[in-house]
This record gives sequence, structure tokens and C-alpha cells, in this order.
Amino acid sequence: MSQFNSGSPVGVALIGSGRMGAYHGETLARRLPGARLVAVVDPAPGTAEKLAAEWGAPAAYTDAAQAFADAAVNAVVIAAPARFHAELIVGAAQGGKAVFCEKPAALELAELDRAIDAVRAADVAFQVGFNRRFAPDWAAARALLDQGVVGTPRLLRSVTRDPGGFDPARVPADTIFNETLIHDFDTLRFLNPGAGAVEVYATADALVEPVWKDRGLLDTAVVTVKFDNGAIGIAEACFQAAYGYDVRGEVFGSAGMATMGDGRATGMVFSGATGRAIDTARSDQELLAGAYTAELAAFIDAVRTRRPALVGGEDARAALSIAKAAARSVRENRPVTIAEVAK
Amino acid sequence: MSQFNSGSPVGVALIGSGRMGAYHGETLARRLPGARLVAVVDPAPGTAEKLAAEWGAPAAYTDAAQAFADAAVNAVVIAAPARFHAELIVGAAQGGKAVFCEKPAALELAELDRAIDAVRAADVAFQVGFNRRFAPDWAAARALLDQGVVGTPRLLRSVTRDPGGFDPARVPADTIFNETLIHDFDTLRFLNPGAGAVEVYATADALVEPVWKDRGLLDTAVVTVKFDNGAIGIAEACFQAAYGYDVRGEVFGSAGMATMGDGRATGMVFSGATGRAIDTARSDQELLAGAYTAELAAFIDAVRTRRPALVGGEDARAALSIAKAAARSVRENRPVTIAEVAK
Amino acid sequence: MSQFNSGSPVGVALIGSGRMGAYHGETLARRLPGARLVAVVDPAPGTAEKLAAEWGAPAAYTDAAQAFADAAVNAVVIAAPARFHAELIVGAAQGGKAVFCEKPAALELAELDRAIDAVRAADVAFQVGFNRRFAPDWAAARALLDQGVVGTPRLLRSVTRDPGGFDPARVPADTIFNETLIHDFDTLRFLNPGAGAVEVYATADALVEPVWKDRGLLDTAVVTVKFDNGAIGIAEACFQAAYGYDVRGEVFGSAGMATMGDGRATGMVFSGATGRAIDTARSDQELLAGAYTAELAAFIDAVRTRRPALVGGEDARAALSIAKAAARSVRENRPVTIAEVAK
Amino acid sequence: MSQFNSGSPVGVALIGSGRMGAYHGETLARRLPGARLVAVVDPAPGTAEKLAAEWGAPAAYTDAAQAFADAAVNAVVIAAPARFHAELIVGAAQGGKAVFCEKPAALELAELDRAIDAVRAADVAFQVGFNRRFAPDWAAARALLDQGVVGTPRLLRSVTRDPGGFDPARVPADTIFNETLIHDFDTLRFLNPGAGAVEVYATADALVEPVWKDRGLLDTAVVTVKFDNGAIGIAEACFQAAYGYDVRGEVFGSAGMATMGDGRATGMVFSGATGRAIDTARSDQELLAGAYTAELAAFIDAVRTRRPALVGGEDARAALSIAKAAARSVRENRPVTIAEVAK
Repeated sequence: MSQFNSGSPVGVALIGSGRMGAYHGETLARRLPGARLVAVVDPAPGTAEKLAAEWGAPAAYTDAAQAFADAAVNAVVIAAPARFHAELIVGAAQGGKAVFCEKPAALELAELDRAIDAVRAADVAFQVGFNRRFAPDWAAARALLDQGVVGTPRLLRSVTRDPGGFDPARVPADTIFNETLIHDFDTLRFLNPGAGAVEVYATADALVEPVWKDRGLLDTAVVTVKFDNGAIGIAEACFQAAYGYDVRGEVFGSAGMATMGDGRATGMVFSGATGRAIDTARSDQELLAGAYTAELAAFIDAVRTRRPALVGGEDARAALSIAKAAARSVRENRPVTIAEVAK
Repeated sequence: MSQFNSGSPVGVALIGSGRMGAYHGETLARRLPGARLVAVVDPAPGTAEKLAAEWGAPAAYTDAAQAFADAAVNAVVIAAPARFHAELIVGAAQGGKAVFCEKPAALELAELDRAIDAVRAADVAFQVGFNRRFAPDWAAARALLDQGVVGTPRLLRSVTRDPGGFDPARVPADTIFNETLIHDFDTLRFLNPGAGAVEVYATADALVEPVWKDRGLLDTAVVTVKFDNGAIGIAEACFQAAYGYDVRGEVFGSAGMATMGDGRATGMVFSGATGRAIDTARSDQELLAGAYTAELAAFIDAVRTRRPALVGGEDARAALSIAKAAARSVRENRPVTIAEVAK
Repeated sequence: MSQFNSGSPVGVALIGSGRMGAYHGETLARRLPGARLVAVVDPAPGTAEKLAAEWGAPAAYTDAAQAFADAAVNAVVIAAPARFHAELIVGAAQGGKAVFCEKPAALELAELDRAIDAVRAADVAFQVGFNRRFAPDWAAARALLDQGVVGTPRLLRSVTRDPGGFDPARVPADTIFNETLIHDFDTLRFLNPGAGAVEVYATADALVEPVWKDRGLLDTAVVTVKFDNGAIGIAEACFQAAYGYDVRGEVFGSAGMATMGDGRATGMVFSGATGRAIDTARSDQELLAGAYTAELAAFIDAVRTRRPALVGGEDARAALSIAKAAARSVRENRPVTIAEVAK
Repeated sequence: MSQFNSGSPVGVALIGSGRMGAYHGETLARRLPGARLVAVVDPAPGTAEKLAAEWGAPAAYTDAAQAFADAAVNAVVIAAPARFHAELIVGAAQGGKAVFCEKPAALELAELDRAIDAVRAADVAFQVGFNRRFAPDWAAARALLDQGVVGTPRLLRSVTRDPGGFDPARVPADTIFNETLIHDFDTLRFLNPGAGAVEVYATADALVEPVWKDRGLLDTAVVTVKFDNGAIGIAEACFQAAYGYDVRGEVFGSAGMATMGDGRATGMVFSGATGRAIDTARSDQELLAGAYTAELAAFIDAVRTRRPALVGGEDARAALSIAKAAARSVRENRPVTIAEVAK
């Protein structure tokens, strides 16, 4: 692991500056006192330079390898497209950099295993971007679970509905499982601490863009996950909700139920001639701004204190295994065990 | 008191069949097994006959005195205009009938005292239509107060906003105090058990129909009520709310706060392109249907069991005293003590 | 169909006076002006007599056939154990009585078909006790669907959680599907108007009483239902919720989402040293009192007006088909088509 | 006004490092990219040095005059005790520094006028710490007002309840008006744009600590404020709420009502054996963290852009005038006009 004084800020390189990368870059530059954005990496000519200048980062690279070789970089935040994640994790780890990687950490289990092996061998911190664990409602629910207040989980639910606006032509196969529901699979695990998924049944369809169904689009899905403690989880997703971005959770246990996610833009309520009206959040960055900052803060803290990250490689692997089983379940229209996909 | 077997239904005459009277008539005829509607009284030719036929009541009268003399009548429900209340209470009591009277039981304290004396002399049950005490939220809050869960009240609030549609030309002076806020004055007392009002400051205006202000209309008012236990109550009213009928309460005590009244038409919530929408109740009879039935059920029960009514003459007097003090406070723009008005 | 004047009350015989039967008897005797309870049937010696006396019903029988032969009986309300339903429906229909039957109308599809044939042949009104359709939240959601406000349904959810206290030894096999989730199966259909279920996947377990699992108890279940319009429904049930009786619904469509069921006992909210507290409903009769009355009112109205009942034989059959498919899906751990069970 | 390049960060000196000062210092050092904390001022020996080191501020002073003379200081944030505010504002303005001052900007109107004159003469930005204007619920309500959605305000309410733990011996006279309710007086004005207060009636008592009443403590108060557009405002405060920190608002206008402040700690809801439970916010810094940052961000922005601050000297004066009238109203138990106190 690269050397740095635990009292000084952690030097971070941002890799990828798309929608989510830009948000993380802003956070590293302006919202996290313990981090210092020291490099921006983007392959598009000029992009990294422009952002580095805007954020006051001393270095701009077009190749991630340059960041891996930069001594000022203690850690990387990977927000490149998912298909590059595993390779970037391996490279960063081999360069001795701590790694925060957006979800999914990889698109195939074999790649993910290679990445996990690399961070283990390098003994660097590794955290995956399962941000919902850092959202206040979810963290509060987990605290109740840990205190025993909810009892043993019996039924769980996790919902993700995006506000729409996607281009069906650019959605890779299984995106709804690998990139959207992977949050919900992790959330079900987070809300059922210590339990493991054993079998998955999924059903999915193209209900938002039905004409794209023949080309393999799945934009709406329901996944049932059986856990080894008997609990049954339901993960639901849809790529378009008329009312904005909708993220909710529920854990029902032997002693009670916690529900998460109210989707309100603010607590202001207007009562008028047509009744009562409440604004709803329209984007993930509006709804989850705090969680996006908190997950990076936790990562920086793990790097500084050399304590393990709160969401690591095993969590990434468990969620990806459920995603793989779900995709196969849809194709074969039968329940699929985790053992079948996660040898 | 007229004789009747406590096992048989209580024979009730309805006096007055306007908006509220019609609702009570329907309740007596169809919603209350222990009551039997035996007479309808209305001075308008043919009205009582028509309603009696519709409700299966055996008798129809144009003069309340006929009901007071009818042996089948054990009790009366008075829903005539407020200016006739006191006289009708006296007549009913002298006829030996138990009396339920819509609020306000009288428009002047002297009249009310005469009515109270009459029911006492006749030893008949007497209940005033302060229905909010019978609404589930308010009853639940009072139960918490009685259990000590709220602690000693410090601040109280009671709100009444009507849905509008009133005719400013037909609103008698001080209606907002005598007929609307009288509910809130009673509610403040109900939520501050055992305490008495000592001083009142009120401010009021014609904000809904400003052109009528010169003719004495007051359609919006705020009244501060100081109680002898130090608690301060606020009663608010307006004759027109764009979103329907709005009745709310709040009691803040040393150990916590209870709030009452959410105004929703149902628990169904719709989230759509403009955000989240909830229907609001549009009328008192929609919002308080249960309370209107419950208050008559309690009255019938008091008659059958010969136990005192839950809201009696003293409550009517206390609320009317606050109303009188509030009206004077507005005229003289100064705090007015209850002692000044309620000698 | 038995003759009666549409202006006079409908004479009703109550068949079965257990928990739900007693509630319906009370409603028929005291809450529904258009109905007259004319007979009570219960096989236990003395039970019918006692209740008939309490409710003022002129006749008490130990055999339903006596009610079917009673000319004062225009209609029956069947609340006997489910295994007797089909036979009672047939008998009542053959006696020319209109039939309201508690859900499930039968435990087997063949029996149900016989019952449906009988009511058709007799041309009598037939309504099944799917009360949730009459609960205000659900009725309001359906109204939005009918107005097109929700758009085309994509994802649906219906939840039933009982407050517990059941005796595992007395729960027949598949009760969670046939008697509990059958409400949710009907609700999913109610919230997806015009669509038909095509395939079901169910998973279930004994999580409340795990020691009874070997004896076939299933007390917790999740059922995924695919509809022919592409919508995916989720029905969830558990026999024990620590917080009381929990009934909720959700329909998410192309234009928005309606949610139903807030489970609050009243709208009163208490804020105290431990935070904010809201009482939850503890029983179905507390939460659904209005729906229980409304469904009987609708039935009486259908009888009087000779219009078809709002929830009839086809609805009973569709819900039972889903229940049958769900039970088989659990046994065989595979998706089961409706066509397989509902030949 | 001191010179600085609008592209470079605004150099800020923090004056006073108590509870609120420490929070502002943290914000300036770590949460606001456009600000740079360049000096900390605290009269207690060693305090400024310690905090300056922690926050990386280059200068630490025991005398504010040193900051006023420091060329690196473009602006000051005053969080010293209220009795020093006016004098500090004058000093800062004379030094050419922009001024953010915690509320109240002064304890007497004459002092405040002197401060306002000084900032005007120096032509520096001046903002007062009325943070509620920057809280999301309140900002959203004001947006609706500005769009005309609420119509003309008729009734307004603003509530502040502190979580308690105060020392009655250290509460100066009229603190509840000058330091607590001054937020609510400003909020009433904020929710009634363009209107001016004309008359005030206040009632107050020592209900939390009744034994201190004789020594002049007022810990609970209700203030009615009449505005020149006819609207009636109610401001309420109490120094101790069992359930935490409670800040709410309501504006009821001709076209509808906006309500603000739900007091929840998170959106997580737990339903258990005792019903439903929601955590409430326990401190202002928990509930208003975002508003505290947003008000400083707005100030920094005003300094950089040389646009007027959103809450300036006139707002401070208007709120203090209401506070003065309220205090006199309590002493004289009569309505007091603003004209009487704010010559």
C-alpha cells in the first residue's frame, strides 16, 4: 500500500468522469475535507484537463495507468463503464492504490474474482459503491436490526425505479440485473445480516419500451430471493417512473417492520384546490446526495485508518451472483440456485 | 323524566331538519340501533311529513311543543337555528324529555343559564353537540392526556377551516365565535382537562369577503386563551379553505405532544408526473361522519343508563363564555377576562 | 328468485356465526337499513337461538336447509367454514335465495363451478366476500385506474399480514393461499382491470412456527403472478405481524403509482421522549369495519335492484385458480401456468 | 469594500467560537469551497489558536479588531454573544469587511440602526442569520408563494421548540423574544412577502421552570402579529420539548396552505409491538444542518458577486421590532403597535 501520513489528506484519482464520476469528482474536490483530488483520468481528449482545472486537481491523464504510477495518488475512485471495472481494479491494486469502485465491480464472476485476488494480494482497501447502505433510512433500519429490534427477518423488499429517459438501443443485455437491481440485491443482503442467498426466481419484461423486447430489452423486473435463514426477499425494478426516482426498502421480521425511502423532495406539503401535493425527488443525485458523499467519506476513512471497508469484495460477489442467477432464471423460466451460477 | 324501559329503544324526536338536522335524522333512523326516530319537527309546511315518511318515523309536527307532549318521545335532538336553542331546551326539559342540542346551546349566557336550570330541574339528560370530542383522533389524544403520557399542557391549538360557499349577507354578527370557534374553545378545554379559561385576546377580520367587513362580517379569526394552569391555547378559524374542510388540534405538554386531524379523504396516495397527491376531505360530514354518529350514540347511551352526558351544560357555558370574551376582545382590541363576561 | 318488493327491506339469513359471521350478523341487524336479519343458522345447539334473540331475528335454525325453505328469507350470507361453502351456495340458489358467500367461495375449482352453475341456473344474485374492493383506499385507487390516471399497470403488490395468535395444529394445508392470499390475488386482479393471470411462481415457508413445517404448515409466502398484459403482481402474506393487522396495496403504472393501506388506528400522532408514535390497527375488524359494511350494502343493493353483484363467480374462480397454481408452484418449485390448474 | 478577485475564495474570519460559532467555523473550513477560513477570533486565551490549527486557518486573534485590520480577511462571520453584535458589525464594516451576523443583529433598535448605517456607509455586504429561510421546506413554501400558488396569506404560524437543557439562571430577560422567537418573527414575514407587521399581542409564562417566573424567566410564549395586508400571524415558542427540536411553519392563503417542518430524524419508520415509531430530530444542528451551510453559501455568493444579501438589515430591524413589541405587550398585557416601539 502506498505510504502516506494518516493525518494528511488522502490523494485520490478519479477514473471516469461521466454522470456519476462527475458527482464523485465534485465530492472529492469540495465536500470531503479528508480527501484531496490529485488526478482526473478520462480517455476523451481534453476532458480530464478541463475537469482537473475546474476542481484544482494537479494532474490530468488519459490513461489510468498514469494514475496508478503517480506517487501522489493514494487511492482511486473508479467510475468508468462497468465493463472496464475489473481490469481497472487489478491495475490500481497492483499500483498499490486503495480502490473505490462503482457498482457493479465486474460484469462476470470470474473477472470479479481476479479483481478481489488483486486487492487482497496488494493489501489495499477495496470498497464497492453500494450507496444505499449509507443512506440515512437504510442505515437506521440496519441499526435496528443489529440491536435486535426487528427480530429475525421473514420478508424483505427493495425497490428501484428510475425516472426514465434511457435510450433502449444503448442498454446492454441484463443491465436491469447487473447495474440496477444489483443495488437491491445488496440491500436485501444488508437488511438480512449474516444470511446468504440460496435460490432466485426472476421474471422480467420490456413494459416501458415493448417494441424493444425482441431485441432483448428488459426494463421491468421482479426477483424473488430465498435466503438460508428462510427469509424471502423481493427485488423490483423499472427503468421509468412517471413521478421521478423511487428507491424504497422494507424488512419485516419477527418483532416488527422497518420501512425506508419516502421519496419526498422536501418536507413541505401544499394543500390546494385539488387536494394535498408533495414534490417527489426526480433524480438519484437529488435523493441520494448524502449517501453519495457518505460512502466516499467512509472509504477515505477506511484508507486513513487502514480498517476494512464497510462494503467489500465479498459483498460485490454475493450481489453479482444473485444478478447472474436472476438473468438465468428469466431465460430458463425456473428457479436457479446460487450454487449453479457461483461455482 | 319520561318513563321508558332501559332495554327498549329510546324514542327520539328530531327538531329542525336543515343540513345538520337531516344528518342526525338519518343517523337516528338508520345508524343507531338503540334509538328509534319517533317524530320529526319542522315548521316549514310538509317538510316534517316528507322526512318522517322517508325515515319511517310515526309522527310529524310543525311545532316542537307537539313533540314535547308526545309520550312516545323520550328524548329530543335539537338542530334548529341557534337563536331558538335555549327556548327549545327549556320546553323539552319541561316536557320531561332528554335533550341533545347542537352547539351553541344558546347565544347568550343568560339564556343558557335558564336552559341549564330547566334541564336540572327536570332531571333529564342534557348533551351539547361538541362532536370533536367523539372524533377518533381527539378521543385518542384525550386518552393519552388522561394516562399522563402528555404531561402538563403548555401550549394548545385548535383549528377550524370551513370549505367556503357561505353567503356573507346571512352571517349574523359574531358567528365565527359563537358557532364556529365554539368548537375550538371546547376542544382547547377538552385537551386541557380540569383547567379553566381566565383571559382571552382575539383578533379577527373579513379576509375572505373584505367588502363585507364594514357590515360587520368577521370570517377569519385568531383567539389566544390563557388558562388557570398557565397553558396557553390558540383557536383559529376561517370560513373558506381552498382545500376543503380542515379541523386540526395539537396539545403540547411537559412530556410530549399529540396532534390530531390529518384531513385526508382516504389513505390512498397517488404519485404521478406532478409529484404526490392526496385527496382532502371536502365537508364536515365527510370528515366527521363517525363523530356525528358517536356523539348521538353516547347521548342515547346516557339516556338509557341514566348516567350523565359526557358533554353537558357546564361545558356549553364555558365555551360560550370564551366566545363572548373573544367577541368583546375584538371590539375593544384588548385582552378580556372570562370574569368580565361570565358574571 | 324469491319475490320481494324492492322498496321493502331484504330479508337475510345468516349462515354461520363464528368470528366473521357474528360481525356480519351485527351489520345485518344494526348497520344496514335496507336489510332485515330474519334468520340465524348455526349447527351448534342453542347458538342460533341466542343470537337471533340478541339481534331481534324472528327465526333460528340449526340446519341451513330450513333457511333455504323459509319464505321470509330473500338472501343468505354464508360465513360457515370454507369447506361447506360450495354446498351451501348450491342449496341457497336452489331455494331461490340470493347469495353472499365469504371467501373462498369454494376450496376446489370443480366445486366452485358447480356453485356458479347453480346460481346461474337459479338466476340469483351472487357475491363473494372480497372486502378489500370496498375499502376506501382500494376503491379510490381503482377509480384512478378507471380514469386512466395511473396508466397501464406494470408492477402490482398486495400484502396481508395477520396479527398472529393462530393455532398451527388447526391450519389446513394451503390455507395461506386459499384463505389469506386469495384476498391478495383478487386485489391484484382488481388493480389490473381487464387483465388475466397466466403464470404463478410461489415460495412459502413456516417462519412463524418453524417446528410445524414438517407437518405441512406454511405461514409466510410470496407469490409472483404474471398477467397477460405483461404486468407482474406480487402477493405477500404472513400469519403474524408484531404490529397488528397489515393490509397494503400498490399499483405502479405507466403514468404513476397508487398506494393503499396505512394501517394507522387513528390519525393521532404522539411525539414524546422516544420520538414519534402512531397506533396501528390490531385486527381486520378494526381496520376494515367500513369495508365489511360496504360489501354487504353493495350486496343488498344488488339484490334490491336486480343488478349483477360487483364481485361474482368469475372473480371467485380467477382468484382460486391463482391460489391453486401457487400451492402447486410451492410443491413443485417451478412456475405453474393458470392453464395447468384451471382446465 | 476590501478588494478581492471574484474567482478566488473569499477570506473569512470567524468571530466567536461557541456552539454556533464552532459549527460555522467547520462549515467555512470544510463545507464551502468558495470560502477560505483565514482567521479565528475568540477572547478566551488559546481557544482561537487551537481552532485555527484544527481548521487550518492561518491567523488566530483574541481581539476582533485584529481581524478587522487583517488584509486577508474579506468577510466576517459574527457568532459572539448577542450583546456584542452591533459593535462588531460596526467595527467590521469600518474595516471594509462584509458581515454575516448571527441573529439577533442587535438587542436594541438604536444599536441596530447604528450597525445598519455603518454597513451602508462602508458599502459592504450584510446578512443576518435567519437560517430558516434557507431550509428546504421553507424555501419551497416561499417559492409557491412567489408563484401565486398559495394566494394571499390569511393565517400564518411559526413554531420553535427547543430540546431543553437550558440553565434558567443564565437566560437574560426577553431572550424568548429576542433570540428564539426572532426566528419566527422573520419567518412570518418571509411567508407573507411584502407585508409589514402593524400590531402585536403576546402572552408568555415560565411553564418549564415555574419557580424562576418571579425572577423574570419566560420560557413559553405565544405572539399574535397583525400585518398590514390583514393576515394574522402566530409565533409560538417553548424552551423545552420532550421530543427534541421542533421547528414548523404554516401559511394559509386564499388559494391553499403550505406546511413546513416534519421533524423526522430520517424517513425510516419502525412498526413494532407498540405501534409505529419515527425518530425525531434532537437538535437544531441535526435538523437544520443544510440550512446552516446554505445561509453561509448564500452570503459568500453575495460577497463574490457583489449582489445584495438575501436577508439584510431591514429584515433584522423588522424582526427585532416585533420582538420589542412582544416583550412590551407581555409587560403591559395589551396589544402594542410596531409604531410604538420602532420610532
